[in-house]
Amino acid sequence: MEIIKVKANSRTAAVAGAIAGVMREDAHAEVQAIGAGAVNQAIKAIVLAKGYLDEDGIHICCIPEFVDVDIDGKVRTAIKMSIQSCKE
Amino acid sequence: MEIIKVKANSRTAAVAGAIAGVMREDAHAEVQAIGAGAVNQAIKAIVLAKGYLDEDGIHICCIPEFVDVDIDGKVRTAIKMSIQSCKE
Repeated sequence: MEIIKVKANSRTAAVAGAIAGVMREDAHAEVQAIGAGAVNQAIKAIVLAKGYLDEDGIHICCIPEFVDVDIDGKVRTAIKMSIQSCKE
Repeated sequence: MEIIKVKANSRTAAVAGAIAGVMREDAHAEVQAIGAGAVNQAIKAIVLAKGYLDEDGIHICCIPEFVDVDIDGKVRTAIKMSIQSCKE
């Protein structure tokens, strides 16, 4: 499964559409962000995606975790949000 | 239930401890943050709290939503994270 990578300047509606598409296809999505601006965009996109998916009867929740990622040879700590369907 | 309010300069370990305490007591917690720095601290605190609670067999997930809050007479959009226990 492809990880949806979010940056501080990512458009939330585009990210939300990607999350909703992957959730409809795979019932599970992963979103990764590095830095406060990117994490904020990711959360806003998840809120929007939740609205889209609620209409389809898919109720999502997310489980955040830290992951180390290699960016140009430097290790940085990212936040990875695993999104799954949850009971309300 | 009291909402746990997170700021950009909140200590993540302290917030995580508060989340874990409320989850153990009530099986549900609410975390609110305004702005990218605060949202980032909130998510990092949830990751830490997840670690604490996993040891107790409580597996948490969060559902983010937008809420309007009144700050000194001005309406601002906050992110509210509802934390509940979820199947892994």
